[in-house]
Amino acid sequence: MLTVNGPRLWNSLMEMAQVGPTAAGGNCRLALSAEDFAGRALFADWCHQAGMSLDTDAIGNLFARRPGRNPQAMPVVMGSHLDTQPAGGRFDGIYGVLAGLEVVRSLNDAGITTAKPLEIAVWTNEEGARFTPAMLGSAAFCGVLPLARALAVEDAQGISVATALAGHAGKLPLGRPFDAYFEAHIEQGPILEQAGLPIGVVTGGQAICWLDVLVSGSPAHAGTTPMRLRRDALFAASDMICRLEQLAGAFQPHGLVTVGQLAIPGSSRNTIPGQVRFTIDLRHHQDSQIAAMEQGSRALLQQLAAQRGMDIDIRQHWFSAATPFDPDCIAAVRQAVTALGYPHQDIVSGAGHDAIYLAQHCPSSMIFIPCRDGLSHNEAEYAAPEDVRMGADVLLGAVLTRAGS
Amino acid sequence: MLTVNGPRLWNSLMEMAQVGPTAAGGNCRLALSAEDFAGRALFADWCHQAGMSLDTDAIGNLFARRPGRNPQAMPVVMGSHLDTQPAGGRFDGIYGVLAGLEVVRSLNDAGITTAKPLEIAVWTNEEGARFTPAMLGSAAFCGVLPLARALAVEDAQGISVATALAGHAGKLPLGRPFDAYFEAHIEQGPILEQAGLPIGVVTGGQAICWLDVLVSGSPAHAGTTPMRLRRDALFAASDMICRLEQLAGAFQPHGLVTVGQLAIPGSSRNTIPGQVRFTIDLRHHQDSQIAAMEQGSRALLQQLAAQRGMDIDIRQHWFSAATPFDPDCIAAVRQAVTALGYPHQDIVSGAGHDAIYLAQHCPSSMIFIPCRDGLSHNEAEYAAPEDVRMGADVLLGAVLTRAGS
Repeated sequence: MLTVNGPRLWNSLMEMAQVGPTAAGGNCRLALSAEDFAGRALFADWCHQAGMSLDTDAIGNLFARRPGRNPQAMPVVMGSHLDTQPAGGRFDGIYGVLAGLEVVRSLNDAGITTAKPLEIAVWTNEEGARFTPAMLGSAAFCGVLPLARALAVEDAQGISVATALAGHAGKLPLGRPFDAYFEAHIEQGPILEQAGLPIGVVTGGQAICWLDVLVSGSPAHAGTTPMRLRRDALFAASDMICRLEQLAGAFQPHGLVTVGQLAIPGSSRNTIPGQVRFTIDLRHHQDSQIAAMEQGSRALLQQLAAQRGMDIDIRQHWFSAATPFDPDCIAAVRQAVTALGYPHQDIVSGAGHDAIYLAQHCPSSMIFIPCRDGLSHNEAEYAAPEDVRMGADVLLGAVLTRAGS
Repeated sequence: MLTVNGPRLWNSLMEMAQVGPTAAGGNCRLALSAEDFAGRALFADWCHQAGMSLDTDAIGNLFARRPGRNPQAMPVVMGSHLDTQPAGGRFDGIYGVLAGLEVVRSLNDAGITTAKPLEIAVWTNEEGARFTPAMLGSAAFCGVLPLARALAVEDAQGISVATALAGHAGKLPLGRPFDAYFEAHIEQGPILEQAGLPIGVVTGGQAICWLDVLVSGSPAHAGTTPMRLRRDALFAASDMICRLEQLAGAFQPHGLVTVGQLAIPGSSRNTIPGQVRFTIDLRHHQDSQIAAMEQGSRALLQQLAAQRGMDIDIRQHWFSAATPFDPDCIAAVRQAVTALGYPHQDIVSGAGHDAIYLAQHCPSSMIFIPCRDGLSHNEAEYAAPEDVRMGADVLLGAVLTRAGS
């Protein structure tokens, strides 16, 4: 079975990491910065050397194309992004792009032309570190975000995407049809590493429900108010958060519950908290289960507030439904990893990825490899050369299945 | 039995409230401000009209003196403070000073000269709103704070106490002996109001133990980290805070437990909290019990941290031992309130007062009256005229017992 050249892929990753390096061994290539364009130029050089043509669309998404035997066929697309967080790593995004390049190089080495054309996509501003929202390029491509709005987004210095893109936007149409989209990525979590598995067959993206909670009791003097006369909003909120942790237990192994922010307005050491605000982040890969988690959270919060004589306000801040990936694309990945004999498990993507938007546009799926300590968005981000190689082997196998060798 | 003129006392309180009034019906007389000096001048006028002489000490504490039959005797001193919070009330402090004045006026009306001299003290900067620490004048008088340090304290504009005092400091010695000190005050808590009692016989001040807690787990991505692999510092801290609430239950009715401040450094909605800092305020009027509360808190926090695999750091930020008031002074108050037939209960002071320092200097005690909704340090602060009158009656009775009629 055809496999990639692991050392070549690793060397390309390390060479790309020389563009916008940081002191602690990471990368800073903010979207549409000089460093980002330098990274894209290096990638374009490699694609030209591999015989590919390049073009861009109106939001600056970059596509490298390798013709297939059937010029009328829609392309099978691989890809991810080359931009990074301000103190980002060498693998997040970059791996998906350069694994795509390695697939093409390996096909060149083997003298194989696929039936369908192949493309490698570099999506603009996936990180959202310079321009908000994240996944801006794929959102504009997939029609999730209107182009005009995407171009008008400004960074902290007031520079718009349109201005930053000047000379780098092309004429490829947004939303042109793809046969399929495959994205290889580091997991950005600890599951595969803990399981000792090099490959995750990604079956979809999680549903996310964000709630804002305001608990109101009565502020009072910590020295003069007996316990029985208090309406302490922090004792109430702490009780609620403990119960939310228990609620998570009822939705294992897939449900996630996080209280990431908590604030006591106007707090002081010797004042009983009168108000507490906190956030809830609920996740599950099944829409029915996220709904049950939200309902369960609201019920237990209301019940505890009533028991403790608190006022409570619970608002949904944001909701994103689950994204199941395409069964055929998942099957192509599973077939490849099985044929290669690599240990693997199914996994759900916990982070956002361009593939989550692409799944609304065409049959899509992803391949995960482990990253050390689950660490990402961090200069210490690391994936082992063996895992990097095996992930690209799986991508090659899935693409060959889909594109026809 | 001799009683005061309630309407006269109430009218004086309302007249004093015209000095430095605020829009919402409260007062702003920051320590040593023009408003504070105007309030002192009004008080001094009233004292002169009542036949008293006035003098100040080096920190600006103001003393009005009424001679006794025995000029060698140490004075029996009443008092409190005239300065307020920036948005303060009309009673906190002012009541203790003007109740003292009303005692003298009532003795004048009755033609009574006490055996020991009487004094009314107006302590400088009790509130600590302009100059930190609070109770600055009584601390300097009692030797708790060296005079040079007290004079060097600066406000937010860099103006020192010495500068603000210019022309208002006198030659009365600090720390001169007192026979006894009685301070009438609003309770600043809800106990008497809830009990429907006009008088609290204050038996002392609480011990206070302030702890700083840092709980450290691991920050991680809220979307990619399974519940079983998390080390969520907020879930741990919430559990700890719930147990602290339970611990308070074991020290009822006197123990107080407050977590007033909680912060998650670098928090974000979709990041699992890696660190949580919070404060603990423990109070009890018995030193043995505050020690047990601190020990119990430390033990349960350590135990929960160990159970959850958290690192924990617990530091004592401040400790102040309990201040039992003088048994004879308490007895004088109890005797007066009993003779008057006013409903009352024993109570412990939860807030700081000049009397807490005076108790280190001479036999001291306090008399509390209720305040509406337990509210203080607030423009809406209110005490009912009847309670104001009854508190002054008790002060008069206690002072007569101590000073000899």
